[in-house]
Amino acid sequence: MSAAAQLRGPARVEINEVAPRDGLQIEPVVVPTDGKVAFVDALSACGFARIEATSFTSARAIPALADAEAVMHQIQRYPGVRYTVLVPNLRGLERALSCRPDEVNLVMSASETHNRANLRMTREQSQAQLLAMIDAASTAGVPVNISLSTVFGCPFEGEVETDAVMALATRFAEAGAAGITLCDTTGMAYPTQVAALCERFQAALPGTGLTIHLHNTRGMGLANALAAWETGVTRFDAAAGGLGGCPYAPGASGNVSTEDLVHMFDCMGVQTGVNLGALLDAVAGLPELVGRDIHSQLLSAGPRLRTHQPPAWMAEHFAAQA
Amino acid sequence: MSAAAQLRGPARVEINEVAPRDGLQIEPVVVPTDGKVAFVDALSACGFARIEATSFTSARAIPALADAEAVMHQIQRYPGVRYTVLVPNLRGLERALSCRPDEVNLVMSASETHNRANLRMTREQSQAQLLAMIDAASTAGVPVNISLSTVFGCPFEGEVETDAVMALATRFAEAGAAGITLCDTTGMAYPTQVAALCERFQAALPGTGLTIHLHNTRGMGLANALAAWETGVTRFDAAAGGLGGCPYAPGASGNVSTEDLVHMFDCMGVQTGVNLGALLDAVAGLPELVGRDIHSQLLSAGPRLRTHQPPAWMAEHFAAQA
Repeated sequence: MSAAAQLRGPARVEINEVAPRDGLQIEPVVVPTDGKVAFVDALSACGFARIEATSFTSARAIPALADAEAVMHQIQRYPGVRYTVLVPNLRGLERALSCRPDEVNLVMSASETHNRANLRMTREQSQAQLLAMIDAASTAGVPVNISLSTVFGCPFEGEVETDAVMALATRFAEAGAAGITLCDTTGMAYPTQVAALCERFQAALPGTGLTIHLHNTRGMGLANALAAWETGVTRFDAAAGGLGGCPYAPGASGNVSTEDLVHMFDCMGVQTGVNLGALLDAVAGLPELVGRDIHSQLLSAGPRLRTHQPPAWMAEHFAAQA
Repeated sequence: MSAAAQLRGPARVEINEVAPRDGLQIEPVVVPTDGKVAFVDALSACGFARIEATSFTSARAIPALADAEAVMHQIQRYPGVRYTVLVPNLRGLERALSCRPDEVNLVMSASETHNRANLRMTREQSQAQLLAMIDAASTAGVPVNISLSTVFGCPFEGEVETDAVMALATRFAEAGAAGITLCDTTGMAYPTQVAALCERFQAALPGTGLTIHLHNTRGMGLANALAAWETGVTRFDAAAGGLGGCPYAPGASGNVSTEDLVHMFDCMGVQTGVNLGALLDAVAGLPELVGRDIHSQLLSAGPRLRTHQPPAWMAEHFAAQA
């Protein structure tokens, strides 16, 4: 198969596995610390570039991740894997920095209503807080990534202005953020929109690492990933088993599933560094970890070249014809 | 949102709704004729370019579609909709032609093992039969489309040679087929492969209508549709509710769901002629039609700009701050 003339992208991408944080924070059960540590260790063995291991949110806000310090102290640190953690405020940053993360990930929304609903602050308050956290993390020598939620649409407001997204991204990049993640928080993104925003971002902020965070809410998860990749994006968030979701978007499914994303890149000959077989083993263990069924399309169907036996009647039928 | 520089395709596409044939043939229940007719009529009202209404297979092979003549006689023929039917052999063609279809769709596989398993013939036998059927249909003045199965991979053999696919397509185009459908029968296609084959097909056979038939088995359905669209493809098969599947690929899910595909094109500003609201109403009726749950991502989540109410505590919380 010759390469397509009209469909090209980078030869190598990095996958940031977010299920330990973005997935487990929304599951109805609290996974014991041992289970979380074993899950992160299994993911580390898969070869991910980054793993978002936990969140230093208050135990009251997200009880499921109240054991963030314990998780960070007990996981194995694999060489080549960057362990990042979500941090919501200065108090959380202090806790996080004591655990030596390779990076901290801060979050706010591009739309006012989602920021208020999700973070209980105005965007102005959030931005001021994030700028203070960038300063504090930089002083501690820890790189900062900013995840901007609802950049492709807000479940309360609808369309979100690209100019507002770029203004926020530019402000944080200028303040010293090493990377920015553009998040399709509730699966409202579509391919031409993703491509246009990714192109604009990369043209405006060439020195800032761009990550795309996609959901599969309306079936477009991999189509949007493809669109981003075609514009040169090399960093993708994804969650094993498609875990995750958003409490403010009823009916929404979770993150793009890591196994589907890695498999698509594998098929296209794009290097991810992730061992798909090891990842599928980790996905197979998810139902026991979270105590519910997990539907993974790739786990059900297998990689594309998994072949099957022809029906038993065939050999005899065609032998009789011959 | 400005258009993306690197992600472009045709401004208008045609959707061929195949659920009445490709979906209902594999459902465990036999849908009564009245139900089928009402389903096709509901789809006609949505504005599809084409509807594959039934199959003139033997009642023994596919009992679920034994009422093909009754369906074709009872459906309403909407102006602007082309009603096509699947025809497996000359006997079926005779039956089909008596029902005045706008087109007949003939089928064979690009891979030998799948052709034998699915059609109980060698590819050589199938090809000879299809050529005879093209002659007979042309004599009757009815256009012929050929659906080539397993062109992106075979569930028994694995990879399928592109040269073999192009040789078949060329043979049928030269024999007078008006259109060819490249079918990803068990969801083995991936975007760069789809783009490369579509480019090659359109360069080699510019006068032959090219349709792409995709499954979502490994989550890449819409990504593959996007890839095909980027190369200029304007015709897409899809099944309402993602009905369909393949008996030879255990664990495989069905066709790309029409509502997800139409929604993606709607988002991108690509005209399909299909009314998404009317289509979602038809999808909502599928569980009653086929007697089982149908998971439609788009029906669950709604179109992307469906907005929700912010949480009730928000207004009071921020009023207290002010």
